[in-house]
Amino acid sequence: MTDTRERLLDAAADLFYREGVNVGVEALTKAAGVSKRSMYQLFGSKDDVLAASLERIAPGYSATLLPEDGSGTPRERILHVFRVVEEVAPQPGFHGCPFLATSVEIKAADHPARVVARRFKDGLGEFFRRELVAGGAEAPERVAQQLVMTFDGASAWGVMHGDGVNGQAVRMAEILLDAAGVA
Amino acid sequence: MTDTRERLLDAAADLFYREGVNVGVEALTKAAGVSKRSMYQLFGSKDDVLAASLERIAPGYSATLLPEDGSGTPRERILHVFRVVEEVAPQPGFHGCPFLATSVEIKAADHPARVVARRFKDGLGEFFRRELVAGGAEAPERVAQQLVMTFDGASAWGVMHGDGVNGQAVRMAEILLDAAGVA
Repeated sequence: MTDTRERLLDAAADLFYREGVNVGVEALTKAAGVSKRSMYQLFGSKDDVLAASLERIAPGYSATLLPEDGSGTPRERILHVFRVVEEVAPQPGFHGCPFLATSVEIKAADHPARVVARRFKDGLGEFFRRELVAGGAEAPERVAQQLVMTFDGASAWGVMHGDGVNGQAVRMAEILLDAAGVA
Repeated sequence: MTDTRERLLDAAADLFYREGVNVGVEALTKAAGVSKRSMYQLFGSKDDVLAASLERIAPGYSATLLPEDGSGTPRERILHVFRVVEEVAPQPGFHGCPFLATSVEIKAADHPARVVARRFKDGLGEFFRRELVAGGAEAPERVAQQLVMTFDGASAWGVMHGDGVNGQAVRMAEILLDAAGVA
């Protein structure tokens, strides 16, 4: 049963990312190779599958984005995130941050998947905030918001243009860190 | 016939923005009060309706965002755009920039609506670039990209948080303009 759950969530995360949140239950269960009956034994609804699939990818996505514990200065650790964005954005099949995509696609802010997405993005903001405090930033809360906006703005640019962000995600982060006094 | 076309496109723009691009032809024609037959006499497909509805809202959206011709310094003219974002983002029913939303929701980059969205966003970038040149910016092309990323990042934050962007869209634009030497 755990296997079925994982297979379903992996297929869901992949399909929702590639095709959007409106993928139907039929296509979803088919891609996962599980029966609809099995799906409904595990989850109350497709909405719950969607939310759970975002929960499932969150740790791996964080591991990709964030620097290793204890490595580098706060400035370096923050810039690491944007270097990953620069690397990922030009890749074929890039559709932006999956948590941003879900939040844009689902219009109801209280949808369970949007709650998961918001939590993830707040976690990224909290990472920035902690590093900014460690780096002696002025107004760390605000600068953390600026960095999250840079992250999502880069994601949007990458989706819109399909050929990466030309170093401007890292550049913007550098400018914002300079302005905040994080050397 | 012109009337029918306009009614259909207005209803489409509104529905697609509020509910997403997956609204069906049934719901769309019902909301517009036109028959499916009329729709298919005017447009080859729902995809074409979607693209045409974005074309239709583009001039009004530009008029909302951009400053009046000839008003203010280049810096002021650029900041005007971000003041509008600050004003619009906390409003109920805000789902972000409609051109960004469409580009995130539709995964195929060559979809006609994505082509319209990209053209709009490139137009915004071109406005920034011209003002940056007029303001004597270093690397105007790159700074224009940074400002577009700020615009979309603010849009994303507004969607994600539902209560505006706390002055940080304007603040980021100011920091980027300072760094580019646009006083």
